[in-house]
Amino acid sequence: MSSQSRSANDAHYELIYWPGLPGRGELIRLLFEEAGVPYTDTAKGTGDDAVSAVLGYISTGNKGDANNPPVLAPPILRHGGLTLHQTPNILLYLAPRLGLAPAPGDDGLLHLNQIVLTIIDGLVNEVHETHHPIAVSAVYEDQKPEATKRSKVFRDERLPKYLAYVQRLLDAETSGQGPWLYGDKLTYADLVLFQTVDGTMFAFPKTMDKLKQSGKYAGVFGLYDTVKQRPKIKEYLASDRRLPYSNGIWRCYPELEEG
Amino acid sequence: MSSQSRSANDAHYELIYWPGLPGRGELIRLLFEEAGVPYTDTAKGTGDDAVSAVLGYISTGNKGDANNPPVLAPPILRHGGLTLHQTPNILLYLAPRLGLAPAPGDDGLLHLNQIVLTIIDGLVNEVHETHHPIAVSAVYEDQKPEATKRSKVFRDERLPKYLAYVQRLLDAETSGQGPWLYGDKLTYADLVLFQTVDGTMFAFPKTMDKLKQSGKYAGVFGLYDTVKQRPKIKEYLASDRRLPYSNGIWRCYPELEEG
Repeated sequence: MSSQSRSANDAHYELIYWPGLPGRGELIRLLFEEAGVPYTDTAKGTGDDAVSAVLGYISTGNKGDANNPPVLAPPILRHGGLTLHQTPNILLYLAPRLGLAPAPGDDGLLHLNQIVLTIIDGLVNEVHETHHPIAVSAVYEDQKPEATKRSKVFRDERLPKYLAYVQRLLDAETSGQGPWLYGDKLTYADLVLFQTVDGTMFAFPKTMDKLKQSGKYAGVFGLYDTVKQRPKIKEYLASDRRLPYSNGIWRCYPELEEG
Repeated sequence: MSSQSRSANDAHYELIYWPGLPGRGELIRLLFEEAGVPYTDTAKGTGDDAVSAVLGYISTGNKGDANNPPVLAPPILRHGGLTLHQTPNILLYLAPRLGLAPAPGDDGLLHLNQIVLTIIDGLVNEVHETHHPIAVSAVYEDQKPEATKRSKVFRDERLPKYLAYVQRLLDAETSGQGPWLYGDKLTYADLVLFQTVDGTMFAFPKTMDKLKQSGKYAGVFGLYDTVKQRPKIKEYLASDRRLPYSNGIWRCYPELEEG
């Protein structure tokens, strides 16, 4: 149970995620793409196969195996004999292996983990709440009045709060030289920031443009641009491996936007 | 920046958290209490000092220091020269040091981390959303109709879903012998489960009682009782170090309960 990692370093990485939208899976894909490490992605097979793969893992009848507890929800990572879920946890495992974070046991990995947890709280989880403030199980159309209220609070209070925090990270001594969130080179936190800003720009284009024009978050939007121009990220974004936004976390409902 | 841990093993632990309620700080306190390790807790000083301590860290003017990025919100842990925030991140650091999890780099710690992230999603974050579904910045009384709707969904769908997942963890081979969530002895995940079930029982006593009586989650409620009877936990719960529930995450509003 608590032995050292059983995963051979040369084992193949497999991402199990819903098809048809970038979602939380995208936070994981960007690490593989930046590192240039091959991975299998169920979302890129036929839609039925991807859905079956996910349902097989999250089924209440699935009790995991001798080495891995059952999982609640995707994204799921398989690597050698290891199965993991929870996005920040998968990232914590992958980033040191892919050269995008210091090793486990290093304070730097803990600092990156707290930065990533915070960005995911604000720019993933809270964005999802804007269109589903009452029930995940109900469609958006059944919770529109509440979504309108929650979106206003998100645009006016929560989004500026999180962007200001990210800017504060960039203004800190620990952000080192260059545009990075932590230290003197790109880490997985920068990739997470890129994706979450990109998704939020899709969902709230007017608000994000207004916030960008304010000049208060110049470092944040500068880092976004820097990551977008990384050669491997640029190639990836132009490829058909990058799925378009759809009815996932980051959705564009004009009625939830600025007036 | 990315050096090995700078914290001396014999450095004193200091928890910085709001006074007057258990909150997320309680998830951290229980590790110290079970391990019998001394810690300073700002919440137990005078209320003004505790608030000042928290505000000093989260102030937008605070840019951290040469080794530590700024923090967004409490709980905050200071240990030697290290500052951490984000509850699951603080737990990830503390648990191996306090004998409540395998070492960093071990698959077991990743499995515990994903279990803890999932329990916190369901029984901390989603409980908070039941009374604040629109705005954290507004009082409950200003979002009562929405809170009523969200609470119904929580009671009927979300809470049973998370309890069923925890029961699934207990039914899995990885839960080992005995009542524990993972492996053959108590880990920090068991302490997190205890606190979150305890808080949810305070917030939704009728619903939790009904779910307990259903018999579907016998392992979950059994584990709750087992942790509650641990000698050090029992002593702690009876002491004045245990703060009573109040207007925090776990609140008891009878109108949000079963009819």
